Amino acid sequence: MRKDKFQDLQTPCLIVDRAKMLTNIHRMKNHLTSLGVSLRPHVKTTKSVEIIKLLFEGGTGPITVSTLREAEYFFEGGFTDIMYAVGIVPAKLGRVKKLIEAGAGIRLILDSLDVAQSLVDYGVTHQVIFDVLIEIDCDMHRAGLSPDDPQILDIAGLLEGSSASNFMGFMTHAGESYNCETTEAIRKHSHIERDAVVQAVKYTQQSGIYSRIVSAGSTPTARFADDLTGVTEVRAGVFVFQDLFQAGLGVCDIDDIALSVLTMVIGHKKNQNRLIIDAGGMALSKDRGTAHQKQDRLFGLVCSADDGKLIPNLIVEAANQEHGMITSLAGEINFDDFPIGTLLRILPNHACMTAAAHSCYHIIDGNQVVADIWPRCQGW
Amino acid sequence: MRKDKFQDLQTPCLIVDRAKMLTNIHRMKNHLTSLGVSLRPHVKTTKSVEIIKLLFEGGTGPITVSTLREAEYFFEGGFTDIMYAVGIVPAKLGRVKKLIEAGAGIRLILDSLDVAQSLVDYGVTHQVIFDVLIEIDCDMHRAGLSPDDPQILDIAGLLEGSSASNFMGFMTHAGESYNCETTEAIRKHSHIERDAVVQAVKYTQQSGIYSRIVSAGSTPTARFADDLTGVTEVRAGVFVFQDLFQAGLGVCDIDDIALSVLTMVIGHKKNQNRLIIDAGGMALSKDRGTAHQKQDRLFGLVCSADDGKLIPNLIVEAANQEHGMITSLAGEINFDDFPIGTLLRILPNHACMTAAAHSCYHIIDGNQVVADIWPRCQGW
Repeated sequence: MRKDKFQDLQTPCLIVDRAKMLTNIHRMKNHLTSLGVSLRPHVKTTKSVEIIKLLFEGGTGPITVSTLREAEYFFEGGFTDIMYAVGIVPAKLGRVKKLIEAGAGIRLILDSLDVAQSLVDYGVTHQVIFDVLIEIDCDMHRAGLSPDDPQILDIAGLLEGSSASNFMGFMTHAGESYNCETTEAIRKHSHIERDAVVQAVKYTQQSGIYSRIVSAGSTPTARFADDLTGVTEVRAGVFVFQDLFQAGLGVCDIDDIALSVLTMVIGHKKNQNRLIIDAGGMALSKDRGTAHQKQDRLFGLVCSADDGKLIPNLIVEAANQEHGMITSLAGEINFDDFPIGTLLRILPNHACMTAAAHSCYHIIDGNQVVADIWPRCQGW
Repeated sequence: MRKDKFQDLQTPCLIVDRAKMLTNIHRMKNHLTSLGVSLRPHVKTTKSVEIIKLLFEGGTGPITVSTLREAEYFFEGGFTDIMYAVGIVPAKLGRVKKLIEAGAGIRLILDSLDVAQSLVDYGVTHQVIFDVLIEIDCDMHRAGLSPDDPQILDIAGLLEGSSASNFMGFMTHAGESYNCETTEAIRKHSHIERDAVVQAVKYTQQSGIYSRIVSAGSTPTARFADDLTGVTEVRAGVFVFQDLFQAGLGVCDIDDIALSVLTMVIGHKKNQNRLIIDAGGMALSKDRGTAHQKQDRLFGLVCSADDGKLIPNLIVEAANQEHGMITSLAGEINFDDFPIGTLLRILPNHACMTAAAHSCYHIIDGNQVVADIWPRCQGW
């Protein structure tokens, strides 16, 4: 483990403030412990075995993945209880089978009787047993069945009755919590999530079918949940890093954001009151999630590299592929404060998308680089 | 070289229609040949040695890069005449020096006397000679000096007079051409680009300093340029693939777009008139460049996988990390036409950003996969 200064890093690159990340992790774990539910972190944000092992205090635990590549990568990293939280399709069962045969416990999700039938047929033919949850739609955000949809009984009955599948329970995701304007509204969405899966559990129990996993979550609803009775586990991902979008929702403070892009001032455009940096749309992502929030953060806020403190009024106002343009929202930039070569940190709108542009993290403690390099998995 | 069907590919993935790409390449090369200028393709779009070698009919030629990683990757791939078209900073000269010492001809750009002085000092100290162009700002889009800025004479004089640098000429980029509403306006921007660099050339000639490279370009201005007198070379990148943004500008037809994301229908959301696909914001990018054009393409248009034909009225209206949501702009989707497992191609808003999410291309000819796999370079 090398001890390096920022000056030794090639910009642009991802840096993670270890202390802030650990605080974010502990806050979420303590909150969920107080609610009596377990955490199944969604690793789609960090895609880092090292970071998720930090979350599990050096060990492993149940995780959520968004791609089969993540499932394979984390299984290689020692994780065995893996929920693939995107609807399974028959064409992907071959990769799942390989993981199961290697010893992984893969929890699949689906919301279609046709897919359930194909899965069961595949399992019988290929002598593999799939663990399956039914996806519930709690807010018309994305996929899933309504909790009172009669198909639920057909699917659960099919999965329960087949030798090629185990019916595990229900999962849902309150994607609409991302559009809330108040923390009270987010809390209501945590109730909506809970009520949707609990309703589905009761519905199937009436037919003698029992759920082992009752899974709900998103970072906002997890943060403001106050009663998760009936839910067994919460899925959340971005809380590990937090980002400007979560800060805009009130889920965290800007100072909690643990992920940033280290960048260098590469030009002065004095007649436009702009600093040019070497982090553009490629390094920051083009995500503009904050565009619809009360405070639009454009392409990110600017911090001092050394101490990570926000530099008031500076903002990344435009992003070409490899150029970012920083301006001031209040008066003239003092260009002497930012000579060419100055290092800065950019806080991202959306940590998942920004991190995805990079192949690794540099972990920092204060202004020391303490772990160089923690890899991320990429692709599908 | 394997002959595969789409069904053998893991979705989501990038596919490139070879015939369309070759047509795009030939059209641009023929146009620039007719204008008497050479093409220095910007490889930031494709980041593929194989594709750029195809452009040079199996050989190599002058290229433009947006990162030093691209420079290193293409140099390993046999390319030696490389313009790094992002302002150089002293901290990056070490990597440039290594490339030069290995035999690469790296053309750097800058727009600051301070940086020029640092570069010359570095060259003297480390016994390396840098080839340098001055970046000209033709439209207040990004970086560069105005063509009548007196600093130009100071910088050109310093570079010309030092044993550690060769002054090569001028370059500019009409980024504002991306905001044009008519092809006539784009043509005017090609004149603005030309006039800016030619003015700078004449300005320095008055002091006896001559330019060897006079470089301008963007895909839109290259496409509609009609007179490039005084310009020696054009830089353009996205024309190889084209995309919905370029189609919106009138630079190409939608049917010319050679790059798409192969994706699979993974769900039906009939109560929302939506198909769910396995290409979300991660596979398509969150680029919403068409949002400000006359026709907003949201997150992309939808084509049949087999023949690549546009499916009328279907559009990707939302993109979560690994879920895309397709709806119809005219009436109900006939879900029987798109059973779960159906493959589709999604045309991207911005080819550079979409391609960047992937590590390789699958090259297709009709509905045959003819080259599996052409890698892309990633990172910085």
